[in-house]
Amino acid sequence: MKNEETGTFQSIEWKDENLTIIDQTHLPGREVYIQLNSVGQVWDAIKKLKVRGAPAIGIAAAYGLYLGVRNLPDSGFPSFYSECKRISDYLNSSRPTAVNLSWALDRLLATLQAQNELPTDDLKSLLLDTAKIIHDEDRRMCKAIGEHGVELVQGRTRILTHCNTGGLATGQYGTAFSVIFHAHKAGNVEHVWVDETRPLLQGARLTAWELGKAGIPHQLVVDSAAAFLMQSGKVDMVITGADRITQNGDTANKIGTYSLAVLAKEHNIPFYIAAPSSTIDLNLKTGSDIEIELRDIEEVTSFSGKQTAPDKTDAFNPAFDVTPHRLITAIITEKGIIRPEYSTQFKALFT
Amino acid sequence: MKNEETGTFQSIEWKDENLTIIDQTHLPGREVYIQLNSVGQVWDAIKKLKVRGAPAIGIAAAYGLYLGVRNLPDSGFPSFYSECKRISDYLNSSRPTAVNLSWALDRLLATLQAQNELPTDDLKSLLLDTAKIIHDEDRRMCKAIGEHGVELVQGRTRILTHCNTGGLATGQYGTAFSVIFHAHKAGNVEHVWVDETRPLLQGARLTAWELGKAGIPHQLVVDSAAAFLMQSGKVDMVITGADRITQNGDTANKIGTYSLAVLAKEHNIPFYIAAPSSTIDLNLKTGSDIEIELRDIEEVTSFSGKQTAPDKTDAFNPAFDVTPHRLITAIITEKGIIRPEYSTQFKALFT
Repeated sequence: MKNEETGTFQSIEWKDENLTIIDQTHLPGREVYIQLNSVGQVWDAIKKLKVRGAPAIGIAAAYGLYLGVRNLPDSGFPSFYSECKRISDYLNSSRPTAVNLSWALDRLLATLQAQNELPTDDLKSLLLDTAKIIHDEDRRMCKAIGEHGVELVQGRTRILTHCNTGGLATGQYGTAFSVIFHAHKAGNVEHVWVDETRPLLQGARLTAWELGKAGIPHQLVVDSAAAFLMQSGKVDMVITGADRITQNGDTANKIGTYSLAVLAKEHNIPFYIAAPSSTIDLNLKTGSDIEIELRDIEEVTSFSGKQTAPDKTDAFNPAFDVTPHRLITAIITEKGIIRPEYSTQFKALFT
Repeated sequence: MKNEETGTFQSIEWKDENLTIIDQTHLPGREVYIQLNSVGQVWDAIKKLKVRGAPAIGIAAAYGLYLGVRNLPDSGFPSFYSECKRISDYLNSSRPTAVNLSWALDRLLATLQAQNELPTDDLKSLLLDTAKIIHDEDRRMCKAIGEHGVELVQGRTRILTHCNTGGLATGQYGTAFSVIFHAHKAGNVEHVWVDETRPLLQGARLTAWELGKAGIPHQLVVDSAAAFLMQSGKVDMVITGADRITQNGDTANKIGTYSLAVLAKEHNIPFYIAAPSSTIDLNLKTGSDIEIELRDIEEVTSFSGKQTAPDKTDAFNPAFDVTPHRLITAIITEKGIIRPEYSTQFKALFT
């Protein structure tokens, strides 16, 4: 449905005691919204990637926990809490590796325990309120990222971006996409180059769709054309999201991000990362501490169910790569723009 | 069919008065060979990309001209020649922009004119012999490229390559692929990384198939994973083909090649071009003299007939990019390995 503030769309909405999400499996072909009235439907939506993107999954799961317990009879805290825990485990099983999923559910459970003297009805309201807070916090954080980022996008700027970092993946606005969105609102975006982002084509399927909804001029390119665009003087900056940022600023993100950072340096183009400060993991010293997930080779040897390579062709399919901090011009967070030396700046940020 | 010398396959063969080609439109799913008995069938095979790759098209067309006139009655040179010219124009119309196509046909016509005193039957034999010579020259040239290139591939080498440069596109062996093939025969290839090469996936569809036929160990990767492979120390060299090389060594090749050259430099990995010396065009001073073909945006917004981006998404689809000579470690030709300063070396080569 339409979001009045952004004029585009709202990927997750709580309204009239129901959760409504955009079903991302129909994108970009059709814009379909579905109502989720039970925890089973939320589990299914997460499992089947109808809702995807770490923050969006966390938000949906938080509402899902409430949906799962809202009709429980009043039988005292221990019984209510143990049912919440059981449903939380169930929701967690939908995407076991999604960090935001368990983070959101743990937060709800901890909130309950801190208020264990309340009657069950109040606990239910507390769950719903906390889910709304998680949603709203993400929305405000994404908005702040975008508003801070505008400072870097002055004049008529041509931006290249990779993967999907928009409102589909978050509570609203997105991360790198939020910067583009707010810079566009300020009149500073001339053009956006969208990497299609093989193997799963999040750029072609999702980012191009979001840019279209927001009325931001853009063109799709194959990932390997970025260098040519830069060489031709058609790119003023690169902005991507981040999956994880280490103590020294090394950043893991979708495969192909490191490639863009090297190319940007070669062409003296600024390279920015936009991410919430929660992405910064001070437990990891450098990028070499990040384990790179290797995904199913069929993502590379086939496309949309159609085989592209000979039978039995082996492939190598790293989901992420790590961009060393020396290639990152600045990191845009909800707390402001962070510039090198990152390790020093991060310490100041978190103390 | 199997080629006894290489132990792999023969993409074009003249045998028992017929032309046999591998029908590339069935690759990589099925290995289908078809007989072409008439000029109409050759025209159709070129038009429908059953045979593709500049040298392979030229060779097929040369045999095609012979097929078109072999049954003509003897009615004197002017009549025979004018029929040859008509059929040549017809063949040329199958892929109007393919340089090797018109080059091969012009060569046949010039050969006829130089021998205009011969009886018609001898002229027919002359056409067939010249077609065989064109085929054989290409085969020997590709073989020489490969044999020269082996010098650069010592020890157990991990090679990254882009697009298709193999026997499918040439008389046999290919260009960059010929270097890989001969280095493998010498026991010097540990692994080949195959860029899938969006948008048309020549790497996934054709190069992976050729490597499989030749028993050379390989893995397919999305184009944007090349940087990660290099960063991880998994690539010892990059070899690609070339569409055109200018006076100073600047080289046009499939989109994504320039990207690989920049990445190779960043990681101190040698970057080689393999191409016949006929690819060097001394009429062009630098890469900026090369016009970049922009192709249909549907190659980017869809895949194998299936739309990947939202309706009406605009795209930018340059078919080639230009790698500046400073990023090219050496150019491997049938005449030997050429190292910088290219402009000086090219002059020596052609005088």
